[in-house]
Amino acid sequence: MSVLVVGSIALDTIETPTDRREEIIGGSATHFSIAASYFGNVLLVGVVGDDFPEEGFTLFREHGVQTDGLQQMAGKTFRWTGRYHEDPNKRDTLNTELNVFEQFSPEIPESYQSADLLFLANIHPSLQMEVLAQVGDPDLVITDTMNLWIDTAREELDRVISRSDILIVNDEEVKQLTENPSLYQASRQLLDRGPEYIIAKKGEHGAMMVSENDLFFAPGFPVEDVVDPTGAGDSFAGGIVGYLDQVGEFSAGTLRRAIVHGSTLASFDVEAFGVERLHTLSDAAINQRFERFREMTAF
Amino acid sequence: MSVLVVGSIALDTIETPTDRREEIIGGSATHFSIAASYFGNVLLVGVVGDDFPEEGFTLFREHGVQTDGLQQMAGKTFRWTGRYHEDPNKRDTLNTELNVFEQFSPEIPESYQSADLLFLANIHPSLQMEVLAQVGDPDLVITDTMNLWIDTAREELDRVISRSDILIVNDEEVKQLTENPSLYQASRQLLDRGPEYIIAKKGEHGAMMVSENDLFFAPGFPVEDVVDPTGAGDSFAGGIVGYLDQVGEFSAGTLRRAIVHGSTLASFDVEAFGVERLHTLSDAAINQRFERFREMTAF
Repeated sequence: MSVLVVGSIALDTIETPTDRREEIIGGSATHFSIAASYFGNVLLVGVVGDDFPEEGFTLFREHGVQTDGLQQMAGKTFRWTGRYHEDPNKRDTLNTELNVFEQFSPEIPESYQSADLLFLANIHPSLQMEVLAQVGDPDLVITDTMNLWIDTAREELDRVISRSDILIVNDEEVKQLTENPSLYQASRQLLDRGPEYIIAKKGEHGAMMVSENDLFFAPGFPVEDVVDPTGAGDSFAGGIVGYLDQVGEFSAGTLRRAIVHGSTLASFDVEAFGVERLHTLSDAAINQRFERFREMTAF
Repeated sequence: MSVLVVGSIALDTIETPTDRREEIIGGSATHFSIAASYFGNVLLVGVVGDDFPEEGFTLFREHGVQTDGLQQMAGKTFRWTGRYHEDPNKRDTLNTELNVFEQFSPEIPESYQSADLLFLANIHPSLQMEVLAQVGDPDLVITDTMNLWIDTAREELDRVISRSDILIVNDEEVKQLTENPSLYQASRQLLDRGPEYIIAKKGEHGAMMVSENDLFFAPGFPVEDVVDPTGAGDSFAGGIVGYLDQVGEFSAGTLRRAIVHGSTLASFDVEAFGVERLHTLSDAAINQRFERFREMTAF
């Protein structure tokens, strides 16, 4: 099986209270792809500029991520600069330069058409719709979004949501989409808008999965030293969708284990800047942390 | 075995966006006792005024709560008035009248001296110390507190904490006690101050238990309709300590199941005003919800 992902590839400049990295490889599609690569076969669609460093291409290659759909355009790669507070749940965006991303129009290569799973990372809903128009009929469409699109592109976003099987959103976005302060009730409301499953990300509090007949909670992993939270949500999604691709069958039970794999990958992601930690994982390390989740929740 | 609890007994006036109750039986010791009564043998210490309604005494009697240590003084019972917002996690205290509670000095009856478990509900730390001075050597001292005492009676509170085996506090209080924004790290820091176990309450996100060698997460139960959150933390503690009393042995595994029983009782508590719902529970209803926690966390 295979996973098609469309999202951003960026050069991130990240400041934390104690450290800083300049123009490291980032973006939603990057964090997703590297995380998913530990389980599934990842087909990447995105855009970079002519300044994208060779190490970026090498990174994808080393993780077996297919880059036939990775466009390289004249101009500069998308850049993002952010600063994290002492409380790593809080950050300020200092600068965003769309650069080549401004002209990005996703093109799905012929060779990607048969992908079983489609992950629409957090990009403008009109781009997500363009992707949906180009793919055949994937088994599952999994969608991420952000508050910006809820505020500015609500109609297109609602169309994307209505086409999604699984919606992965953070708790604030669930409440924003429904204007309901109860995360559980709000998530159930979203089931009426198309998706069969809502996965609500609750940051350090983990995740909740809601469907018509199922309800599941996974805790957040207590990371000893959160270095850089950038991309945690994308690597969470990468773990989920990659695991579904690896297992090759879909059920509520599979999705539960997929979510814990997502939490596992996200917990590694934040332990170092960018994808530094994700890049160097072993299957043994992943399995060991997955088992820690069992220990942390058994009673 | 038996559980000795010292805390407040109040007449609560509670407003929600859609309803209101006046002078209903409440207080930390009340919510705790009724919750704990489904499992253990509860010995109550507290104070009420001469206006305390007969139905209050009947309530304790019907739940088999021992009231030899319940003082009745001339004057009015402690009163609290609060208003909940549309988001039930937010409330304003409109009025607090200490009344007879102002002169309260806990006296532990001879017949209570052999209690195995001591729960120090959220009262002034100097009163908690008075209790500790009067009891023999209970197997476990379990302590609750609140932000007010962290701000105003820190030294006494630190002494109480140093004498506690299990500290039950909410997430904000953990961070306030340690000035560490990471709940997990902050909770581990608190282990150095005396308690063997920290149970951090995270509201709708459930609870975390931390010890030197153990870590456990329980989700919050997604209550369909939160009517009145008053006393949720006290009934949580009641479920925990009552269950420990019932089981009669203590281990990390027992404490995990105790915490889920606490979450179960707290989830019932908020479904109606005051202790209305707690008052009418059945063992079957409790066990059924306990099993729901298993279903919600299995993977």
